[in-house]
This record gives sequence, structure tokens and C-alpha cells, in this order.
Amino acid sequence: MKKLINDPRNIVREMLEGLVDLAPGQALLEGEAVILRSDLPEPAARPVAIISGGGSGHEPAHAGYVGAGMLSAAVAGDVFTSPSVDAVLAAIRASAGPAGCVLVVKNYTGDRINFGLAAELATLEGIPTEVVVVADDVALAGVVEKSRRRGIAGTVLIHKLAGAAAASGLPVAEVARIAREGATALGSMGVALGACTVPAAGKPGFELGESEIELGLGIHGEKGVERTTIKPADDLTAILVARIVADLGLKSGDRVALLINGLGATPPMELAIVGRKALADLRALGIVVERAWNGVFLSALEMPGVSLSLIGLDDARLALLDAQASAPAWPGPGRIPAARQTVSVPQSALAEEAVPSAGALAGKTRSLLEAVAARLAAAEAELTDLDAKTGDGDLGASMARGAEAIRALPETAWVRPGRSMVAMGGALRRAIAGSSGPFYATALTRAGRLLADAEAPALSAWADAFDEAVMAVATIGGAKPNDRTMLDALEPARLAFRDAIAAGRSGKDALIAAADAAEKGAAATAQMLPRLGRASYLGQRALGTPDGGAVAVSLWLRALAEAL
Amino acid sequence: MKKLINDPRNIVREMLEGLVDLAPGQALLEGEAVILRSDLPEPAARPVAIISGGGSGHEPAHAGYVGAGMLSAAVAGDVFTSPSVDAVLAAIRASAGPAGCVLVVKNYTGDRINFGLAAELATLEGIPTEVVVVADDVALAGVVEKSRRRGIAGTVLIHKLAGAAAASGLPVAEVARIAREGATALGSMGVALGACTVPAAGKPGFELGESEIELGLGIHGEKGVERTTIKPADDLTAILVARIVADLGLKSGDRVALLINGLGATPPMELAIVGRKALADLRALGIVVERAWNGVFLSALEMPGVSLSLIGLDDARLALLDAQASAPAWPGPGRIPAARQTVSVPQSALAEEAVPSAGALAGKTRSLLEAVAARLAAAEAELTDLDAKTGDGDLGASMARGAEAIRALPETAWVRPGRSMVAMGGALRRAIAGSSGPFYATALTRAGRLLADAEAPALSAWADAFDEAVMAVATIGGAKPNDRTMLDALEPARLAFRDAIAAGRSGKDALIAAADAAEKGAAATAQMLPRLGRASYLGQRALGTPDGGAVAVSLWLRALAEAL
Repeated sequence: MKKLINDPRNIVREMLEGLVDLAPGQALLEGEAVILRSDLPEPAARPVAIISGGGSGHEPAHAGYVGAGMLSAAVAGDVFTSPSVDAVLAAIRASAGPAGCVLVVKNYTGDRINFGLAAELATLEGIPTEVVVVADDVALAGVVEKSRRRGIAGTVLIHKLAGAAAASGLPVAEVARIAREGATALGSMGVALGACTVPAAGKPGFELGESEIELGLGIHGEKGVERTTIKPADDLTAILVARIVADLGLKSGDRVALLINGLGATPPMELAIVGRKALADLRALGIVVERAWNGVFLSALEMPGVSLSLIGLDDARLALLDAQASAPAWPGPGRIPAARQTVSVPQSALAEEAVPSAGALAGKTRSLLEAVAARLAAAEAELTDLDAKTGDGDLGASMARGAEAIRALPETAWVRPGRSMVAMGGALRRAIAGSSGPFYATALTRAGRLLADAEAPALSAWADAFDEAVMAVATIGGAKPNDRTMLDALEPARLAFRDAIAAGRSGKDALIAAADAAEKGAAATAQMLPRLGRASYLGQRALGTPDGGAVAVSLWLRALAEAL
Repeated sequence: MKKLINDPRNIVREMLEGLVDLAPGQALLEGEAVILRSDLPEPAARPVAIISGGGSGHEPAHAGYVGAGMLSAAVAGDVFTSPSVDAVLAAIRASAGPAGCVLVVKNYTGDRINFGLAAELATLEGIPTEVVVVADDVALAGVVEKSRRRGIAGTVLIHKLAGAAAASGLPVAEVARIAREGATALGSMGVALGACTVPAAGKPGFELGESEIELGLGIHGEKGVERTTIKPADDLTAILVARIVADLGLKSGDRVALLINGLGATPPMELAIVGRKALADLRALGIVVERAWNGVFLSALEMPGVSLSLIGLDDARLALLDAQASAPAWPGPGRIPAARQTVSVPQSALAEEAVPSAGALAGKTRSLLEAVAARLAAAEAELTDLDAKTGDGDLGASMARGAEAIRALPETAWVRPGRSMVAMGGALRRAIAGSSGPFYATALTRAGRLLADAEAPALSAWADAFDEAVMAVATIGGAKPNDRTMLDALEPARLAFRDAIAAGRSGKDALIAAADAAEKGAAATAQMLPRLGRASYLGQRALGTPDGGAVAVSLWLRALAEAL
């Protein structure tokens, strides 16, 4: 058993301490496993108190619902074990007054007995206390009588109804009536993909096979309707929705609230997928889903699975659900859009303008790039081989695909150097899925932006653009020199280029100097330890082979120098 | 692999649909895996947009943080895979305007590249876009450079800072500065108890032994500081807190906010236990924890484990964290009490009053009860044996313990029959842990309440009290006749008693009739199928043995009739 706990005997106390430490407006009742509101007025001024509880292991139930507008107190038993009569009685004494108290109890024998007796005793002491039993699990409909169904996650909605009714100042009998009517209009059903482990037991309460699931089980792993094999989420959701709808007798035009409840270890991703289908199924039946909540409301330790709850609504009940409540685990009103909201993507602010072809210049730029593309295409096998030694081996194909995409650019791309580079950047970004596409795309886009609309940039402007491009690669990738990346070819190349220009040499000579430096830099990567990305896991094993990305840089620089 | 999904290829789309279906104020961007605010003004009127995202599988991040005061949009890649440049660009175009955009990016190569390039392109289109990289994982401090740390759960706090800064109307450079400074003051570290399964892969990304845990791992299960054995939660929490505190250089008097983040399959119970210890450790160091949040904020699918994040605070940063935000997964201001709040249990409203002993009456009542107690004590072995056949075998001991508790009641308990019964109820409730204690306690308490302070109740009042007691047992336990419970002895007994009284017979005769009926009823339970509690799992196997609870009723009734 791996759990983030200390001694299993102390988990309930330590949990309650953590909960009150982290919740404003909650306090721990001394000597009892009870959390109650810390902001209650004097007993005589208290509205009807609402108290719930039961075995622990169902968090955030029940302490998470202690707060203004919801529960006055929550009583925690040991894991999956009812709290004692005296603990319930202490909670009543500490949080209720002469206006009385309503105990919201999930339908389990132990809870019924202990909460029931506490209610008797509290009433005897002058705190008129009513018990409302919630039995919302429809899984065993037709198998057991309605009054013997289990109480599961829908209970949280009864906390909300009762809490709001009490906060509005209604008398205890009226609050109890509202809660009982709510419980009658409520149905829930769950599915578990696995078991959970009670800490004191140290092993799972039941076993499920590798593809087995338990449909309709209870929140302690009690038997469900059927042990079956895993089905698509949509199929399972359809079963749950259909069973609850049938049990409550819901029909087109009826109004409901929907609770999608993770049982403890279900990722939000899966709850969203289930929620989407539940909503779609209900809407297809013409049922109006006025409110919906999606999260973990009443769990079963770390059980993977989900339960759905539906409660029928009229205006009065809806107003109670909507009423303000400040309990830490109550997610708020649960308003949802009446239909899925979508927005369309606006057109780019910079729509591709039709620019007249620049004739000779376009032809020259294009022929240069054709030469580079041909060189990269020819090197595909070599680059693939290098990359496969330390990476995923897609570099050769990426470079070839990029070259192809550049060749396919329309004539209008070649009007001015700056625009050409931005166009090439876009082509590479779309054509290359791996990281080399975005690196080249960013470098070209930044450099192109610097050159802007100049028809024939000065050599110093080209040097600035080279700097800008290399800086973009460094910034975005987070690489530094000697990290064994394309930067180890780019950085010396840009420096050599800049030095050559500063020394008054021609553009072609400067490019040759850059290509020389890049080749030297690429060769040096064979002695560098990789520090970034997946290659970093290789460590020493990468030594002896140069980095493919750096070699690719030296290849296209050489091709460019030769073609100019 | 058991997951609540349909085709793994569709999970991200289906999840996003579910999320927008269930969230007010959110919309899906057509054709893109992007969720954005549905309530954004026209581009020219928009404040700086805050956009985040990354691979899916970290829910509720990032879509859960889309809302007023937090993110303008969230971009979702495939599970654990960076979204494309074009998806990020589409999100920027759809949610930002001339005021610009800040991209909050977790420090992974793919995300840096794709968000980085999208920022370049958006800026080129006239939307000045800044990138803020969050690298909050301190696990590999000293092993990798600060700039190469991973971005993990603390990122959510940067969403909040940036969102609040943007909502306050600050310019883009200022919003980015605030977010970057926040990221510098932020540290996180996690521990995993197990792996998670990427749906498309179908098997866990790594394996942990039965008692192995991974300390300091990343949110995709990347390598951590150490693979070690499970330790108590307090020890693990102490390690995480100490590492983060050391890395941030926090000292006594420093102010922080604390985020306790479940990695996906960690029950709230465990998060509360960890939170309690983290808070205690920080306070012990003199660090002032101004705010704390406890829940699932940035997960790793269904990975069991937790991460802690701390961010240093000054007044300005605290105000940004406190600012109103309406994103579905943002839990609000996170205010916590400065110290643990406790409340003491008030004394019972009905404190035990000293009532003068009633002499002869007290002696008579007491001798009656002594006879009953003796009979029950003598029957311990018989009851144990009966109960062991269908229950947990504790009935004999429970009855003997109850008899002892009644014998030990003080003289003042025996002043009037009604008070005596209430006193006996209390004694049984405290003495008997199993369900029989509360059942008898409730029955006696209700009957005693009905008899109130009468010194010598009329026989008809005794009949009413008997009815009340039996009804209490039925109500609290939910049992019906023929369910094979104590009710199958009690119900015929109370009817026989009432009939005898109505026929004008003496109290003793009526009790004899009741005892006869109870014995008959108890014997009949041998042919009844158990329908409640643990015995119900036995079905047919229970037949042939009478119910121990029913037999116990017949025993004490007979003893009472004989002793009267």
C-alpha cells in the first residue's frame, strides 16, 4: 500500500487538522472528529443547523461542505465506518440551537442508527432534530426496495438544498421537508474501474480483472448491478444516464441539475468526456439541464470511476441550489451554456498581399534557394544517419521536406529578401513537425522582419539579420554554446560572417568564412556532451558523432556560399 | 488500460467539448484545440491577453484557468505533447488585440519553441506578444542550471498574477515583467507514488516497484532526484518543503503562498495530511503563509502523488493573487486562518441534575433491572453462538456489557421510570459499540421521554411507551417484519402487551403475554431470509438458526415478566 499518510490509526485526525488549517471559517471540535463553522452566532441566534457526516474516505465530503449556506458541521467516522452517536451529538450541541437541527444521513445501517439516536438525544435536550435519509443510488432499482438503496454522491445536493433552506430562516420541519422532497427527486449511479484500499486494511477491498469494471457499485465498493468488461466512455455514460432517467421517470421538458462526480482517482480529462456525453444524452431526450457540476464531490478513497446524479428541479429548488454558499468544496451555481459555444478563428491581420513580382531579383533569390534545397535533399541519408545516433532520426526527412516546401513557394514570395525569409519561415513551420521546423522558422521570421522591405539590404544589415536569427534560436531553445546543438555551428558562423563584413570583404567571401566556421563548429560537437532534449539522456554515449542539426547548418551555409 | 475514454485519438477534442459544455463564459475555437473566453470585447478594447497551454493530461490546466481575471485562452496539445505553432497563433489571433499578449509557457523544449515562434509571428502581425517561461521545479537544483528546470504546478500561480495584472489594464511589457518576477520567486517539487498511462501508449510510462516512489519527478514522469522507498507523509512533506525553502532562500519573516497540488489520483484525504505538515513546517521556520490552496491544479493524468509550490509575496503580488477571477478551476483567494481554529464542546443542555432518591420506587426499579441484567449475563454464551452463525458474534458480549453498565448506574438514575429509561439508554449507548447498543438506547430514550416524569405511569402509558420504543427501532434501522431482526420479536410483543392491557389484564400478565409472543417471533426468524446488514449476504445459509437479536429480546422480556 502506497499512500501519503503516516500511522493509519491517525489519518482521520490528521486529515481533519489539515482541512481546518487550510479552510477559512472552519474549526475543529476539541476531542471529537467534527469540523464545524467557526463563525456561528450564539445558540439562540442560530438558524436551523444542517449536519452531515459518515465514514471518512469520501472527501471532500463531508467537511468540505461546512460553511455559510451549507453544512453547520460535519462528523467524520473512521474510514468507511459510521461515527459514534456521541460524536454526532457533540456536533449538534456545538453547532445547533433552539431553532433545531437537520441531520442529512446517507442510507447505511450504521449511519442511520448513530445519527438517529443522536437526533433523539438532542431533541430530548431541547434541540429539535430531524433526520433526512438520502438513498439516491438507483443501481439496484428493482432488486432492493427504494427505502433500502444506498446514499451516494447526490447527497451533496441535499446538503445544498437543506443549507440554503436553513439559511433563509425556515423552521426545522420545513427545512427537513425540503430536504426530503429533494432526496425523493434525486437519483445517482456509478461505475468503478478498480478498487480502493482502506488504509487500516492495507489491501484493496475487492479485485477487478485487467479489463473488468463494476457497474452500479456503492461508494465503498459494495456490489453493483453487474461486473462487466470495460466499454467506451460514451457507452458507460449512456447506461448510467438511461438508468437514472428511467428511475426518476424524467421526460422531455423536465428540468434537472446534473452532478458528474469522480470517485477519487479519475482524471479531470475523463470526467469531461463523461460529462459531455451525459449532457448530450439528456438534451437528446429533451430534458433541460439547468445546472451541472463536474469534479470530485463524494469520493471513495482512490477508486477510479465516476458517478452521475440527477435531481429534478422546479423554480424553488433551483433557487436553493443557486443560493450563495461559502463551503470550500461547493463549486458555485453550476451555470452552463444552453448550447456549446464556439468562436471562429479571425483572419490574419497580415493577409497575404499580392505584390508585383520583382523580376530579376526574384529569379536570383529563387535560384540561390534552389541550390540550398538541392544540397539538403542530397544530404538526407547522411543527416538521417547522424540524427538516428542521438535523436529520433527524423532530421534528414525534415530537411528534405523543408527544402521541398521552399521550392513550392509561389513567385510572390520572392519579391524582397525580407519578405522571402518570412515566407520561407512560414513554409518550414507548416512542413516540419519536429523541432527543427520551428527553429528555422523563427530564425528566418526574425531575420526577415529585420530586413523588412529593403530591396537590396546592405551587407551590415545582412550581418544584423544573421545575428538576430541566431539569437532567436538561442532564446527559444534555451541552448548555450557547447550544448551540442545547431547553435554550435550557427554561433561561430555568425561571428565569422560579421568579422568578414567588418573587414571589408564581399558577401560571398563572408559566407565562405561563415561556412568554414560552421563546419569547424559542427565537427567539434562530436566531443560535446548533449545537455538538452532527449539526447541528454545518452550522456557519454553521444560522443564521437557530430550533432546532426549542426552539420545541417554547415551544409546549407556551404551551399549558399557556393551558389552566390 | 482502463480509462473512461472512447477512441484515444479523439480524447483531446472530446475533453475540450466537455469542458466548454460545462463551463459558462468559455468557447471552443473552431477547428483548433483552443478554449477561450466567450465574453471578450472587440480586439481594440481588449486588455493584454494572457494565454497558456501545453500538452494535454494536466487538467484542470490549462482550460480550467480560462476566465475573467486569469487566462484569455488555453491551447491544448495532444497528451503530453506541445501544441503546434499554428494552434498557439490561432489562440492569440482569437483572443488578443493591439494591446498585446503574454504567453505563459512551462519550460519544455517543444513548448518554448512553438509558443516562441507563435509570439514572433503574432508580433509581426501587430499583436505585441511576450513569452514568460516558468521553470519552477527545484528537484534538480544543483544538477541542472536554473534556466533548464522544468515548469510544473506553480505555473498556475503565474497565470493568476499575469491575469490580474492584465485585467488591471497594465501594458504588455509590465504584465510580462510582473509574471517573470513571479516566476523567479516561485519554487515547486513533487513526489509520485506511481506512474500514469498515456492513452495512445496504453501502458504506464515508467514502472515503480511495490514500495518505490519517485522523488522530484516531472509532470510526465520524467526522472527526479531519487527513486526511493515510500516514507510517512510527514517525512516526504518535510523533504519537499525543505528543498523549496532552501532553493528560494526563504527565511523567518518571509511571506509566501502555498499550493498543495494533487497529481491526479491522490485522494483529498492525503492532500489534507500533506497540507497540514507543510503548513506546520513553514510556520516552524517562521515563514508567514498568507495564502494556501489544496486540490488538483496541474495534474499528470492519473498519477498518484503530490507537488508543493511556494511563491514569495509582497503586498503587490498578494493583491494580484487576491484579485477577483472567474475561471472554473481557480479556487479563490485561498485565505487561511493564522492558526488552527478549535471550539470546545458545550455542556449538555440537560446536565445531570441531582434528584433526591425516591426510596422504595428506586429500589423496586433497580431490582427488576438487576434480574434482567443477570439473565442476559447468563445467556452470553448462547447469544454469542447464535450471532456467530450469521453475524460477527459480538451480541453475547454486547448484552453482557450492557447489563453491567446498567448495574453500574448511580442511585439517582432510579428516581422515576421515564428518567430511568433515559439513563439506561445513555449507559447502553456508551457501553456497546455494535449496532445493538444504539438500537436499545434509542428505544429506551424514546420510551423514557414519553413516560417523562410520571412517578407511576398508567398501564396504557406503558403500552404507548412500548409502541414508541419499537417504532424507534424500526425507523432507525429501516427494518420491516420478516427481515430477520430483533423487530420480529419486538413487534409481536408490543402488540400482545397492548392487547392484554386493553383486555384489562395486569401489568405482569401483559408482560408474560409479550414474552410469549417474543419467543414465538424469535423462533420464527429461523425460517426467515436476512435482508439487512452483513447477514443479508448469507441468503439461504442463514436458515435454520434464529436471529440472535430477536432471541435476546425474548430473554429480557421473560426475565422482566418473571421478576415483576
